[in-house]
Amino acid sequence: MEPIVQFLMPRLDRRQPSPLYLQLREALLEMIQGDRFPAGSRLPPTRTLARQLGLNRTTVCAAYNSLESAGWVASHVGRGTLVVRNAVSGPVRPIGGSPEPVGGIGYSEAVSNLLDGAPERSWESPEPVLEDGDIDFSRLLPDERLFPVRKFRTVVNQILEREGSALLQYGPASGYAPMREVLARRMVQRGLPADPENLLIVSGAQQGMDLVFRMFLDPGSRVVVESPTYSHVLPLLRFHRATILGIPMTTEGMDLDALERTLTSSRVRMIYTMPGLHNPTGITTGPEHRERLLSIAARHGVPILEDGFEEEIRSSGKRVVPLKALDRENQVIHLGTFSKGLFPGLRIGWLLANSEIIRVASEIKSCSDYHTSLLSQAALAEFCRQGHYDAHLERMHRVFRRRLRVALKGMQEKFPEEIRWNPPAGGSCIWLELPAGLSSETLRMQALQEGVRVAPGMPFFDGSGGNRNFRISISRVNEEEIRRGIARLGKTLGEMLKGRQEPSGPVVHRETIPYF
Amino acid sequence: MEPIVQFLMPRLDRRQPSPLYLQLREALLEMIQGDRFPAGSRLPPTRTLARQLGLNRTTVCAAYNSLESAGWVASHVGRGTLVVRNAVSGPVRPIGGSPEPVGGIGYSEAVSNLLDGAPERSWESPEPVLEDGDIDFSRLLPDERLFPVRKFRTVVNQILEREGSALLQYGPASGYAPMREVLARRMVQRGLPADPENLLIVSGAQQGMDLVFRMFLDPGSRVVVESPTYSHVLPLLRFHRATILGIPMTTEGMDLDALERTLTSSRVRMIYTMPGLHNPTGITTGPEHRERLLSIAARHGVPILEDGFEEEIRSSGKRVVPLKALDRENQVIHLGTFSKGLFPGLRIGWLLANSEIIRVASEIKSCSDYHTSLLSQAALAEFCRQGHYDAHLERMHRVFRRRLRVALKGMQEKFPEEIRWNPPAGGSCIWLELPAGLSSETLRMQALQEGVRVAPGMPFFDGSGGNRNFRISISRVNEEEIRRGIARLGKTLGEMLKGRQEPSGPVVHRETIPYF
Repeated sequence: MEPIVQFLMPRLDRRQPSPLYLQLREALLEMIQGDRFPAGSRLPPTRTLARQLGLNRTTVCAAYNSLESAGWVASHVGRGTLVVRNAVSGPVRPIGGSPEPVGGIGYSEAVSNLLDGAPERSWESPEPVLEDGDIDFSRLLPDERLFPVRKFRTVVNQILEREGSALLQYGPASGYAPMREVLARRMVQRGLPADPENLLIVSGAQQGMDLVFRMFLDPGSRVVVESPTYSHVLPLLRFHRATILGIPMTTEGMDLDALERTLTSSRVRMIYTMPGLHNPTGITTGPEHRERLLSIAARHGVPILEDGFEEEIRSSGKRVVPLKALDRENQVIHLGTFSKGLFPGLRIGWLLANSEIIRVASEIKSCSDYHTSLLSQAALAEFCRQGHYDAHLERMHRVFRRRLRVALKGMQEKFPEEIRWNPPAGGSCIWLELPAGLSSETLRMQALQEGVRVAPGMPFFDGSGGNRNFRISISRVNEEEIRRGIARLGKTLGEMLKGRQEPSGPVVHRETIPYF
Repeated sequence: MEPIVQFLMPRLDRRQPSPLYLQLREALLEMIQGDRFPAGSRLPPTRTLARQLGLNRTTVCAAYNSLESAGWVASHVGRGTLVVRNAVSGPVRPIGGSPEPVGGIGYSEAVSNLLDGAPERSWESPEPVLEDGDIDFSRLLPDERLFPVRKFRTVVNQILEREGSALLQYGPASGYAPMREVLARRMVQRGLPADPENLLIVSGAQQGMDLVFRMFLDPGSRVVVESPTYSHVLPLLRFHRATILGIPMTTEGMDLDALERTLTSSRVRMIYTMPGLHNPTGITTGPEHRERLLSIAARHGVPILEDGFEEEIRSSGKRVVPLKALDRENQVIHLGTFSKGLFPGLRIGWLLANSEIIRVASEIKSCSDYHTSLLSQAALAEFCRQGHYDAHLERMHRVFRRRLRVALKGMQEKFPEEIRWNPPAGGSCIWLELPAGLSSETLRMQALQEGVRVAPGMPFFDGSGGNRNFRISISRVNEEEIRRGIARLGKTLGEMLKGRQEPSGPVVHRETIPYF
């Protein structure tokens, strides 16, 4: 028995009330702090350790994730999980650690709402513990292997040389002027006539949503979202103490009859929608759907937050003009981001709306963090100005088209025919449905044992739903990985089908399933 | 008459309901859009234009500021105000501009609170229209002329070369691990035993405050602040719909008897305090005051947010350990920032608290913007690691000590003796009081005509107060500018004293005035 196993084994006890992953975390931490794992050393691969300890691999992953978010270890694709700090390099006495908030005073109701409603989100923690050979279909992140880092470095050098001290000083809340200027021009090319006054630079689309919700929502406000919807909008809405009203998706987009009924029966404060390459279903709505959505919203006086998160990386299908371009009543706020096509680590997105809304949003932005990093903004603006962003997008589009084709072809060949999906018009998501009797959470766990990650459907739904859905994203896996991953998934799915209890329902043709 | 004056003059009409600065803004915009000011051309200096048009200079500044925040012009110290965009480079049709929010639905109550309570904040807009020869005592910004830009550029190059793609990908909400590690070590050196688990990297101290308020406050929650207090915490608290309870400052710090009475009579959710180099008064509290504050707060079970914004740039006086270091009950959340000592444009600050609070704050951070720019974090972390930050701080300390000495000496020599102040123990703020009958807003306007900016007292008070106070900051002016600026201010003050209505009260010795 290896020394590590010898050390860990007696410290794990299923009869203890503390979950196994926490027991494992504590035992590993003891080793790290006791300097058995000096800084720079590598923790064993999760699969190996799980096998040696007789644990489920998800348990080991959860322990590693927890150590990572506490800053003890860091994981990198291809390098495994490294100890980045130990008792010698680290500080002596941690401050506190009481599980109670301060002085007996509870958190705000917003926090209680957030914590109560928080689903298990470890499958989408931003820095996953990935190992060599792991194939990650679960996340909608750009593939960092395609990042044009060298070009970016040149650009950063140029701007720091040209206007270094100005970029390091405070800047305007609404954004760095050349960034707004560059974006205004891009928006015009996209059919969105915009002036810099109509643009607010935000620290990623997530902050854009948060600012809009802070602007329009009070506790208890009703907000319409598609069901399923972007998984990260749900905790944010819970944090705002909003009442979430999910409108089912059809293959055409949000069910507009259901929307009409909802708006007629309740006072709704805002509609959040992804008309283009909807996440997770991949659906893009047509012009008629868009016009009708606008007219329903206008009739009920409800503002729309249009999340155009994949506008930048739409790789195929004809380009549909955004809702905002059809917006005659000034009721649409458009949200854009660089994080899907370029560098999410820079945290740059934008809001596009009428100048009054932008003015108020800038006031809130100024209150909440003054402004977004000027260095990040200036670097991106110059990167765009020199044409590197467009060149990169063109490359990304080619890559994405090929990847999507390879994935869909692989699925046709390797997946049991009980598994259903709707081929998306582009983008990077495929939304699938398991037959009755199978659960996507079970699939997630079984696939993880095979080194393949998928996103289960539940986090995309508020409350129940998604138990039989899962999402495959091809954004961070190359063609070879897709082939291998799809084959492994096909095998897992086949085994699950063999082992399931209930018989499957009638097989519906793949193109026609609605997404509920 | 110059062509510009010929064009503008007939467009300004005092009898119109629209304010003069907006009329001027519109007329200038007409010239910019009509290409009379091509991109890259320079607007006339505000002082010149004010004289030519017979306007108050503040009117011209307001018009320029408004054009700047809309992205038409940009101002730079030493380069004046440049047109950065015009009708040719700009887009064709702006979207909307309706002064109403969308669809007849009002903003959230938080926004109404923010907008209702918003004082005139143009004097502290982040990118002021400064002109050559203008001397700015109004802002607590680092002096960009002292920025070690070349060293920073080298560091940015190194990190992008070493870990470029990882820095451009999504990262953990709690912060880039090496940044937390570097900070933990700095905190330990400062008497604050901290572990990376106790640290959350935030996008500047302002975001740190916002996150803490989101964590602990509900609408209507009572929050204690010093009176006067940091001017930017007030709109943020209004936005949170908090009830602000201002406790008067004495020369020793917050009046603790008054605090005790307040906590006894009302349920308070949080105390916000700046025990070190309080802004705007410059007061640093002693160890006894700190122990008593902690014990009062502990007795009433109220958490404390300690804003250590100037801890990094304390240039003289003996270093007092932060409240957090004396905190045995885990009731203090410490807030730190790089923005006063180094590069505010990067937007990096930190929260230091017990690990449970940090965990929850990270959840909120993740909801609101995922994480702070990794590029900014990694660049700063490496800058610190290589020792450049400490070297820079040492230089800043020398510079600040000399500037403060020059300012205090100049004030002794040039200011009428009716003007009173308390010499601060370090830092960059001096808080002054005018004799009865004079208003600091009048001083601000008259000084502006002389090309000198000071911060009037009112924005540092919630509600009334500060009419006779003003703040001088020496952070962004060199010794020569301080000498010139203080002399001009002395002249302005002398003229105001000659012209005032009421006689001044008895002259109190400068060292002993309390700050109410």
